[in-house]
Amino acid sequence: MRALRIDADRLWDSLMQLARIGGTPKGGVCRLTLTDLDRQGRDTFIAWAKQAGLAVRIDGIGNIFARRDGLDVDAAPVVIGSHLDSQPSGGKFDGAYGVMAGLEVVRTLNDAGVKTSAPLEVAAWTNEEGSRFVPTMMGSGVFAGVYALDYALTQRDVDGVSVKTALEAIGYSGAARPHQVGAYFEAHIEQGPVLEATATTIGVVQGALGQRWFDVVITGQDSHAGPTPMETRKDALLAASGLVLEVNRIATTFPDYARGTVGSMQVKPNSRNVVPGEVRMTVDLRNAKDATLSAMVDELKRRAQAIAAQCRVAIELREVVYFPPSEFAPELVESVRAAAKDLGYSHRDIVSGAAHDAVYLARVAPTAMVFVPCEGGISHNEIESARPEHIAAGCNVLLQAVLARAGA
Amino acid sequence: MRALRIDADRLWDSLMQLARIGGTPKGGVCRLTLTDLDRQGRDTFIAWAKQAGLAVRIDGIGNIFARRDGLDVDAAPVVIGSHLDSQPSGGKFDGAYGVMAGLEVVRTLNDAGVKTSAPLEVAAWTNEEGSRFVPTMMGSGVFAGVYALDYALTQRDVDGVSVKTALEAIGYSGAARPHQVGAYFEAHIEQGPVLEATATTIGVVQGALGQRWFDVVITGQDSHAGPTPMETRKDALLAASGLVLEVNRIATTFPDYARGTVGSMQVKPNSRNVVPGEVRMTVDLRNAKDATLSAMVDELKRRAQAIAAQCRVAIELREVVYFPPSEFAPELVESVRAAAKDLGYSHRDIVSGAAHDAVYLARVAPTAMVFVPCEGGISHNEIESARPEHIAAGCNVLLQAVLARAGA
Repeated sequence: MRALRIDADRLWDSLMQLARIGGTPKGGVCRLTLTDLDRQGRDTFIAWAKQAGLAVRIDGIGNIFARRDGLDVDAAPVVIGSHLDSQPSGGKFDGAYGVMAGLEVVRTLNDAGVKTSAPLEVAAWTNEEGSRFVPTMMGSGVFAGVYALDYALTQRDVDGVSVKTALEAIGYSGAARPHQVGAYFEAHIEQGPVLEATATTIGVVQGALGQRWFDVVITGQDSHAGPTPMETRKDALLAASGLVLEVNRIATTFPDYARGTVGSMQVKPNSRNVVPGEVRMTVDLRNAKDATLSAMVDELKRRAQAIAAQCRVAIELREVVYFPPSEFAPELVESVRAAAKDLGYSHRDIVSGAAHDAVYLARVAPTAMVFVPCEGGISHNEIESARPEHIAAGCNVLLQAVLARAGA
Repeated sequence: MRALRIDADRLWDSLMQLARIGGTPKGGVCRLTLTDLDRQGRDTFIAWAKQAGLAVRIDGIGNIFARRDGLDVDAAPVVIGSHLDSQPSGGKFDGAYGVMAGLEVVRTLNDAGVKTSAPLEVAAWTNEEGSRFVPTMMGSGVFAGVYALDYALTQRDVDGVSVKTALEAIGYSGAARPHQVGAYFEAHIEQGPVLEATATTIGVVQGALGQRWFDVVITGQDSHAGPTPMETRKDALLAASGLVLEVNRIATTFPDYARGTVGSMQVKPNSRNVVPGEVRMTVDLRNAKDATLSAMVDELKRRAQAIAAQCRVAIELREVVYFPPSEFAPELVESVRAAAKDLGYSHRDIVSGAAHDAVYLARVAPTAMVFVPCEGGISHNEIESARPEHIAAGCNVLLQAVLARAGA
């Protein structure tokens, strides 16, 4: 089995064919979830799955499972998947790669006449992107019991169309119910700069960072920039700037892949010669370990209090999102590492800074991910790009890790 | 002469009558320059000036001069003035106080039968506020030769109406040409918190702070807050925040009434989980001494360069306004201080952080200003407020300083 290799050209061709559905002039993809373009993408995937002899079923939130039976009829399936929907200005690889890589694993096994012990399933999860309907990762979230099916079905897009209506309109409201998963693998472009910058082919993903998001309101006092002496000011932007530096200091000094970002800031009255009286800003803290993430939050709160006193302003921090860190299954992570090593690919341990369907699957099954480099670390953009040899390498690693788990 | 006192009630009544023209429900004033309400305010002032026996003339930019002859027919006049226009949401005192105080000085001298050696003139300068037409301080600027009359007349408001058209529409396009001024005095509310906070009645104004304004563009690189490690980021907002702190540090450590403000900031793409790739912000530096102001600018540029290197971003500083510091005439400033002292009013030296018509007059004549406290240091707001005893005190100081200069 260790000599088995996927067909790199077939995988690339499938990705490029899929990318034509919703393809944009700049070479990207716009295939929003549960639109007719999404239906075309799903139909194409299912047609290919059926050509590969797989049995397809759809669940209540529109997730697609394409099954290849195993020798052990009682074994829970090894699932390989990702998503087929894209951002409004998305690329060819985000999501699509994981689904097509799963299909290519199956095609390769078919060609070689290899039967696994556990069944295999290629999954396409509904609405990972969250561009049309929130929450993001809706399909995997419902599958993992994070969201009730009814809750998800009643979410509406900006035009008032519900998920239920949209699912029915494209014919993807299915009857299957969540089932047991023996293990879950997902291949994905990194969507970050680390692999490319270190000339590494395979990212062995340890897990996904936990996230704690805050809305911050800083209230000082507007005053004229000319007549107001420095020592009597209550400058909300001075306090906000101090907090930005603290977020950065926390993220650069705490361990365990700490990250901290202030992405958004609004200044009032935002006039050149008026000392700002109010600033609204966001804070996004991430860490691979929940305890370290909590310590970062505690430090943020302490520093905010000190800055408030120093700048004579009020600082209110309101937590709006908490998403715990996800640690992938050590034995599956090891199988990914071993596969990369055996295949002679450069590889390194990495964490996923963003969330993926795998993060929800990790709540119900042993899970691992395989990352491959993308150009400039750029995704969610039409210029998103990946090299064919990396796309193939990730799929070969996936094949070996799946075989190790499913038994052959 | 030193026993002479103004009529506090008459001055207050005039201010309150004037405040009804354009009076707002919240107790403020909306009397935009060269509107019909401005005409009503001007007409009222001129009617009162004529009742006081003054000869009125109007110049090409609509400045009003109401003259009381002196015993020395060859002497250049001592001019007392300010402006009658207001901000859209302005108060009763900003500007109006200086004109009404000038009128009250003349009325007081009339009542006492005092004739000065030099002639006196009460001036109302056109468009100090700059709310409808820019530049601000247009009338005094034209009078002092800062702006050519033709340049000023061709400025247009948002509806495309020119200053010339607006002046003619309200009948205030006059024929008088700039004339020699022997000395200029202006009484004004402080528009800042210093006098109130120190329980001081009279601010002896040393001059006005010089101003240097910058537009700053910081260019980094957008990236996802999750997958992008801290050490590879090019975070424009982190650099911007560092610059805000530097502006504050410069303003709090440099001497000579240093002030520094970042009043406006726009962040792009301004999304919660995206590292900002671009920030546009302003910097407003002020100082009483031109050399110190230059040193502040040099330090700002040095720090910007260091921050750009540290954050791996580009920082572009573009100077958009330079307004040199204005030092008032020492002998006139001393006469204001002496008057406050003689009258038994608490007083302190102060600088004007904002610009006033006096700043332009100081370019063509010895000039001084008298500040009185305003509630909470607030102006350019309908809640702008001042206490009658302070309004009276400032006018008594003005009377004594004018008499000292004009000779009686």
